[in-house]
Amino acid sequence: MKKIITISREFGSGGRELGKRLAEHLGIAYYDQEIITGIAQRSGLAEEYINNIVEKQPISYYPITIGRTFASAVYPQQNFNTNVYIEQSNVIEEMAAKSDCVIVGRCSSYILRKSDPYNVFVYSDIESRLRRCRLRAPEDERLSDDELIKKIKNIDKGRAKYHRFFAEQKWDDRENYNLCINTSNIPVKQIALPIAELLKAVYINPKNDK
Amino acid sequence: MKKIITISREFGSGGRELGKRLAEHLGIAYYDQEIITGIAQRSGLAEEYINNIVEKQPISYYPITIGRTFASAVYPQQNFNTNVYIEQSNVIEEMAAKSDCVIVGRCSSYILRKSDPYNVFVYSDIESRLRRCRLRAPEDERLSDDELIKKIKNIDKGRAKYHRFFAEQKWDDRENYNLCINTSNIPVKQIALPIAELLKAVYINPKNDK
Repeated sequence: MKKIITISREFGSGGRELGKRLAEHLGIAYYDQEIITGIAQRSGLAEEYINNIVEKQPISYYPITIGRTFASAVYPQQNFNTNVYIEQSNVIEEMAAKSDCVIVGRCSSYILRKSDPYNVFVYSDIESRLRRCRLRAPEDERLSDDELIKKIKNIDKGRAKYHRFFAEQKWDDRENYNLCINTSNIPVKQIALPIAELLKAVYINPKNDK
Repeated sequence: MKKIITISREFGSGGRELGKRLAEHLGIAYYDQEIITGIAQRSGLAEEYINNIVEKQPISYYPITIGRTFASAVYPQQNFNTNVYIEQSNVIEEMAAKSDCVIVGRCSSYILRKSDPYNVFVYSDIESRLRRCRLRAPEDERLSDDELIKKIKNIDKGRAKYHRFFAEQKWDDRENYNLCINTSNIPVKQIALPIAELLKAVYINPKNDK
């Protein structure tokens, strides 16, 4: 069976960077935006629109952009989002079947539950998340700290709702994860290598000395 | 400032063993039952009685054993337990001031919050905890699985209540910890060395390459 590491992460916690660095240290594939691209290719939907669904609650209504055509008609949104979720599951399952890999977000811990993945949850205090967002997102420059914090919390609320809707479990409940790591005040660069070593020891090449 | 690692743990999760092995790998002191012994020496209370208070809700009533004298009178229990908590804080603070160390349980993550400890929470699914308890506690042999599970859950309920009462925070809330590690189906021996390496990298000897 392939070795799959999934990364779920609070927005601004550095989870995506950690996933990328783990994949580098372990010499395995890394999937993140590729999942969205895969769904877009199968469904004909725009990547931005899929991102909106996957990061937000699946039962709300959005105007829909198909390819380059803007459609303002109201769709039966819930079925529609369920279809996106099904495509997402297919894409993630195919990726996981190909080779050992790190997969970031998008309910991958739940979708791959039968493949015995190692599930990591990355979180941070709000100050560290604010700092990380300021560093990486110049488009948010115009936002005040309070506004940016609100944005961060809203994105997480969306992830939690999406996860609860499709996975029927609490997104940030430690029981759904093998490891939860707090990146407050810690550069992700510093933790990636020792966590890669931990993953080797307990998951990728475990010794059988019980 | 001394380097202090605190271990909080669900009963049967192997947290105590992890603490002991981390202290060995890191070559630092390990405090566990020593805390109870310290409180006993200062207060004249029996160790077993102190254990009862520290592992259970602090506002319930127990018959009290002072030294070897059994006193059945009802004490103003809440004040009494608060005094035990104060002694416990003193003992833990003294231990933490002496040298780098690993301290297991007893609200140490909260008591030492100003010393910037690295706080680890260890947890496991109930099946793994049951197996660990069966291996280590022959006195529970007479208990059925259901009874032992009830006992395990009750001990954790007591720890949670004690923590909430004195630390005014949720005992098992990941936000109070730097690392939460799930030991389901994993021998603690296997994770101790890589976690010790992680601790060195992020806490004991961190590099300053931000």
